[in-house]
Amino acid sequence: MTDHNIIQKQIRTQLDSSLADLRRLCSQPSIAAQGLGMNECAGLVAELLEARGFDTRIMPTRGFPVVFAERSGREDRTLLFYNHYDVQPPEPLDLWDSEPFEPEIRGGKMYARGVSDDKGHIISRLATIDALLSIEGELPCNVKFVIEGEEEIGSLNLPEFVKMNHELLSADACLWEFGGVDHEGVPVQYAGLRGDSYVELSVQTASRDSHSGLGGSIFPNAAWRLVWALNTLKSPDETINLPGFYDRVKHPTERDLALLSDLPDMADSYREIYGVQRFLKDLEGGPELEREAIFSPTCTICGLTSGYQGPGSKTVMPARASAKVDFRLVPDQDADEVVLMLRNHLDENGFHDIEITYLGGENPARTDLDDPFLKLVVETAEPVYGRAQRVVPMSGGSGPNYPFIHDLKLPVATAGLGYPEGNVHAPNENMVIDYFIKAVEHTALILQGFSRMPD
Amino acid sequence: MTDHNIIQKQIRTQLDSSLADLRRLCSQPSIAAQGLGMNECAGLVAELLEARGFDTRIMPTRGFPVVFAERSGREDRTLLFYNHYDVQPPEPLDLWDSEPFEPEIRGGKMYARGVSDDKGHIISRLATIDALLSIEGELPCNVKFVIEGEEEIGSLNLPEFVKMNHELLSADACLWEFGGVDHEGVPVQYAGLRGDSYVELSVQTASRDSHSGLGGSIFPNAAWRLVWALNTLKSPDETINLPGFYDRVKHPTERDLALLSDLPDMADSYREIYGVQRFLKDLEGGPELEREAIFSPTCTICGLTSGYQGPGSKTVMPARASAKVDFRLVPDQDADEVVLMLRNHLDENGFHDIEITYLGGENPARTDLDDPFLKLVVETAEPVYGRAQRVVPMSGGSGPNYPFIHDLKLPVATAGLGYPEGNVHAPNENMVIDYFIKAVEHTALILQGFSRMPD
Repeated sequence: MTDHNIIQKQIRTQLDSSLADLRRLCSQPSIAAQGLGMNECAGLVAELLEARGFDTRIMPTRGFPVVFAERSGREDRTLLFYNHYDVQPPEPLDLWDSEPFEPEIRGGKMYARGVSDDKGHIISRLATIDALLSIEGELPCNVKFVIEGEEEIGSLNLPEFVKMNHELLSADACLWEFGGVDHEGVPVQYAGLRGDSYVELSVQTASRDSHSGLGGSIFPNAAWRLVWALNTLKSPDETINLPGFYDRVKHPTERDLALLSDLPDMADSYREIYGVQRFLKDLEGGPELEREAIFSPTCTICGLTSGYQGPGSKTVMPARASAKVDFRLVPDQDADEVVLMLRNHLDENGFHDIEITYLGGENPARTDLDDPFLKLVVETAEPVYGRAQRVVPMSGGSGPNYPFIHDLKLPVATAGLGYPEGNVHAPNENMVIDYFIKAVEHTALILQGFSRMPD
Repeated sequence: MTDHNIIQKQIRTQLDSSLADLRRLCSQPSIAAQGLGMNECAGLVAELLEARGFDTRIMPTRGFPVVFAERSGREDRTLLFYNHYDVQPPEPLDLWDSEPFEPEIRGGKMYARGVSDDKGHIISRLATIDALLSIEGELPCNVKFVIEGEEEIGSLNLPEFVKMNHELLSADACLWEFGGVDHEGVPVQYAGLRGDSYVELSVQTASRDSHSGLGGSIFPNAAWRLVWALNTLKSPDETINLPGFYDRVKHPTERDLALLSDLPDMADSYREIYGVQRFLKDLEGGPELEREAIFSPTCTICGLTSGYQGPGSKTVMPARASAKVDFRLVPDQDADEVVLMLRNHLDENGFHDIEITYLGGENPARTDLDDPFLKLVVETAEPVYGRAQRVVPMSGGSGPNYPFIHDLKLPVATAGLGYPEGNVHAPNENMVIDYFIKAVEHTALILQGFSRMPD
């Protein structure tokens, strides 16, 4: 048997045990936005790492703790795994076909909140460790894990954690928390991440709600103030109206555009999965749609709340209103600067009454497309998936890769078990067990190849 | 003892029993917007009327039933009482100091949802009946009750009910469901009601929510569509932008303005009760503020709902968004016409995707300020409150008085137990027991005076 065959066989032999670990991890709620089950989950992750012989620490931050673990291996090169143990809130609960924190296997998939994002990835890395230890008795190189608990709320404390722990986190490369296949089953490399500034806008115009027959005539209405303020942020043509917002935007290079041209047209898939009738800016699909999805910054209303929201009518003038607003950022926009722009813009438009609460954010960052580690990850996909990873110059999603790339100076690459119908951040989040197995294989080949790379 | 003294004494003798009836009625939820407890409440109201010897029927409508009752009296003149047994939803529940459907007496007030609006009024009318029957053994004139179950959701089916039952409802005058004292304790006559069109605007842009990192870039966002559509309805200067909206607006007469000048300045009271810092249109108070509160039509957002509304952040692109919007109307605006204007306006501004659900409405209507019945109600307040009612030409609130005034051709006057801090439609709704007693007295004097009026 070849090395790869031996690995494949071992992964299948231990599969029940790996899935049992995943079930256990997904059964533990860890909703950072709601502060639910966070310490319990960090403890469970540490326990799973210690069971693999890792030197493990639960390290406090100003928010939720980071689980750090390290174990040395044959070669004196270090691969750092970045993952997170927190998950998105499961709401709306009534749209789930099974309980979000009671993992269930149906039709070759496991369903649970976090099963793909990101607990499946944690367990897939551990399954790779298990397989290599079982076959070789040691790891091919040094391995470190940094597993944070605030990814889904903007990794508020991770940049400082990285800054304070340069030595501890020192490594030669970083394998990121996600990745997977596209809707054609082709493995994908995301060579960067957009940034993000997530804020809550809120306004209180009275100390209590009033009857709309009175307050609606003469009192300032919080919901109207919010609507008018939001309206100034973005025009129906999708132009974001904060002065200076686009100044730092770097446009895609020729090479970026060439990579976009190699991507499959996702338009029909999006239409089918999400039931959308049209795309923004009259885009029809193809590389132009991908360009918009990756290289344009956004301003998204993620939530609106005010007054009466039940069935039928209630004649009330609401004293309070709020909106969740998410700005996705591209290099070289700056997450903190956007919040300052927002404050200035609201003030200049007479919306001093709108309060901004900064709920989290991170700067955008990309890895050099010619980096040897990135190439290794791209190429080792071939024996697993039948072809090398298709390189996407940047993901439309966000994450805290900036301090890893710009402070720790590490190349960051992605490999994982995701797929387009995984319902990440939505009801019925799921993971295809076959993609789990492939991700474990791929991670093993990355570790082996990495251990053999020249310094 | 004078007649009035005898009535006062009897009201106090029977007070415990009256309040027990009120407790019982308020303990029965009857939330029309949520379809909760409606038939049970209609049955209870009918039982209370039957116990007073009324010929009572629970009459079906296309919505919730109307309780009709009649009992003849000494004089062949008929007074029709209009009331409603439905209440507003109690939400937000966490702002109540006691359970909304477990009436509690604290500091001379009874607290419960509906205790003022309108169950207290129902019981106050019945207490008057009790007192007069107890003293005189008969009623001074014929009395009819029409007690509907849809007032809080726009009395959708009442206009048709009135149309279908002209004969049954025939009367000489109508005493309306509410009224009371202003913040100086002065009794008030509201000689008309604004109209109302209440709609839900909703939009669905996708079949499911998506990750804001993807959907936020390229899918239409339901929350943004809603915000942009709402923004076109009203400008920050409070101008309502539906073409033709103001065409039918009748401006107040010189006499109306004179009546407004006699009203106390409510500005400080509003500032204190509602914690508002400023009034709309830079109004400071006085007759101009009252004019705005009464003679201007409105467009109020009563509720906003979309996407994630919990604590912290969730990076979601919402597929659905909705708003509750309440238009208050003045003579001679038309409730149905406003909904047509709204549809046309949205279509002309490119918002074909915004759906309108009509949740209820009614036309504005006023009683002639010189009507003898109105004058009787105004003057009989004097022996009870120490002064005649202060006449307000129209209430800023709404109700289905239009079919009573324009179809049944009845003068409609108001007298009741309300006061400015009653928290009607809000948490901690309450009724002052002393005002209950006064309302019972006043109603008795109205019935006696009405029975002696020339035809």
